[in-house]
Amino acid sequence: MTHPLQFAQWSSAMQTRIEHVLSTAMPKDTETPATLHQAMRYAVLGGGKRVRALLAYAAGEFCGASLEHIDISAAGVELIHAFSLVHDDMPCMDDDDLRRGKPSTHKQFGDATALLAGDALQSLAFELIASDQLSIQAAQKNSILHCLAFATGSRGMAGGQSIDLESTGIKLSQTQLAQMHALKTGALMHAAAMMGAYSAPNVDIQKQRAIDTYAKSIGLAFQVVDDILDSEADTATLGKTAGKDAEQDKSTYVTLLGLETAKSLAQSLYQQALAPLEPYTEEAETLRSLANFITQRQF
Amino acid sequence: MTHPLQFAQWSSAMQTRIEHVLSTAMPKDTETPATLHQAMRYAVLGGGKRVRALLAYAAGEFCGASLEHIDISAAGVELIHAFSLVHDDMPCMDDDDLRRGKPSTHKQFGDATALLAGDALQSLAFELIASDQLSIQAAQKNSILHCLAFATGSRGMAGGQSIDLESTGIKLSQTQLAQMHALKTGALMHAAAMMGAYSAPNVDIQKQRAIDTYAKSIGLAFQVVDDILDSEADTATLGKTAGKDAEQDKSTYVTLLGLETAKSLAQSLYQQALAPLEPYTEEAETLRSLANFITQRQF
Repeated sequence: MTHPLQFAQWSSAMQTRIEHVLSTAMPKDTETPATLHQAMRYAVLGGGKRVRALLAYAAGEFCGASLEHIDISAAGVELIHAFSLVHDDMPCMDDDDLRRGKPSTHKQFGDATALLAGDALQSLAFELIASDQLSIQAAQKNSILHCLAFATGSRGMAGGQSIDLESTGIKLSQTQLAQMHALKTGALMHAAAMMGAYSAPNVDIQKQRAIDTYAKSIGLAFQVVDDILDSEADTATLGKTAGKDAEQDKSTYVTLLGLETAKSLAQSLYQQALAPLEPYTEEAETLRSLANFITQRQF
Repeated sequence: MTHPLQFAQWSSAMQTRIEHVLSTAMPKDTETPATLHQAMRYAVLGGGKRVRALLAYAAGEFCGASLEHIDISAAGVELIHAFSLVHDDMPCMDDDDLRRGKPSTHKQFGDATALLAGDALQSLAFELIASDQLSIQAAQKNSILHCLAFATGSRGMAGGQSIDLESTGIKLSQTQLAQMHALKTGALMHAAAMMGAYSAPNVDIQKQRAIDTYAKSIGLAFQVVDDILDSEADTATLGKTAGKDAEQDKSTYVTLLGLETAKSLAQSLYQQALAPLEPYTEEAETLRSLANFITQRQF
């Protein structure tokens, strides 16, 4: 594993980098329709751990892509994540007033503008990847676009949200919970890493397979840790309303397994993420540190 | 112009064709998450004039693309249109209970599922075009994807909806109204035609330019006719709630220009659409008939 300080520097540099890429790629908040563009920028910029962008950068560099060739895909997956949060926070969904320590987008701009901002963030992700701003082979772009679109839709994130909706008040089994989260959270995290891998000029199937396995475990580990944090942390630390899951009578890894077993599961998924990286030494250090960061995070 | 009966046969054949393409390309309503897939299919299948698909087919054939190579793009643009209707009908937007003569998607499935169904329909459009189901060059796919994503987002349809929201209760000038509709309705109709044009194996710049001009006029004409029909028709004929615009105090071409001048404008836009097709004889007949169909329609 990279020295913690070294990883902190890398992740901080990548967070600054993606913030700049996003800020530059998005329409300015003075451009007509200004309110919509303000809402889009509000929903995306100035916050978040950017875990999905970090996954794209780390997986992309591991597979041999330059950062310049990963930027737009990393931005695309963050736009999709931001759109999902905007819609997820709306009154007809989770009805959450707080996001990243500030009013959620619909609280700030109203429901109609939030709905449209989410819609427009989704299409912006695909638009950017298909645009000349990403200068890789057209066939690579297609793989990246397909990967992202699939992970966003009914067989990915939206599908997971739908299962989540239907399972409120129902006690899920661990298998059902894992299936739901594999779609709701895992699909997009997996896509982020694969999009990074697809950005490399030369295909290394063995490395792509390693990323595939790594990202699936990390995606699930992320959610287990999220459930642990939701049950433990207070709202101020979390930057979003804590204890929401229990309040809404949703199955979580903590309600299902108890806190200690959930923690063991997170640890075991962390180990599963590392396994496919075993053949690789220095070149996989960032991926290992990122796995550690995701599973050991406190917020 | 094609003989009316001949055009009716063509459009009816294309409507049947796109219904089949959509039905086959969409997840089955038994596939998990079944409720979401049912809502998606409910929102898309079994209704509508499919004007955007007709534009894609007519423009594509004019430019030399085979129907097989236009199918997925035509389906993509119809999916985007359907998603926009689902979200537009929601309580926080137009709050409309009726669409295509049946309960709108949120009335049938609830707001949360409608929100997710719209989101998933959007990503499905991009997923299908990027997938192997569309077997054209990767560079062509990129052009098509970019065109559709741009037309969907904040500089296209979503932008137009946002301007529409903000202009409720404000009297717009004819220029402002045209700008709003060029985005809200025009952008996607223009994209539909351009996507058809981009599906041809060989690029004919002159024909692409003709389609570009044609589609811009037709997009605006469509909206002018919509406003005329909204002011004249009753709910049963229209299949959606009539008189909604006036009720919501929205500027329309009819409230702005009066009925007769609005009708003259529709006629003049129809002529503008035909102008770029003048150099073409038989090969542009379907496009001419389609322009006639769009501007003379009674529903």
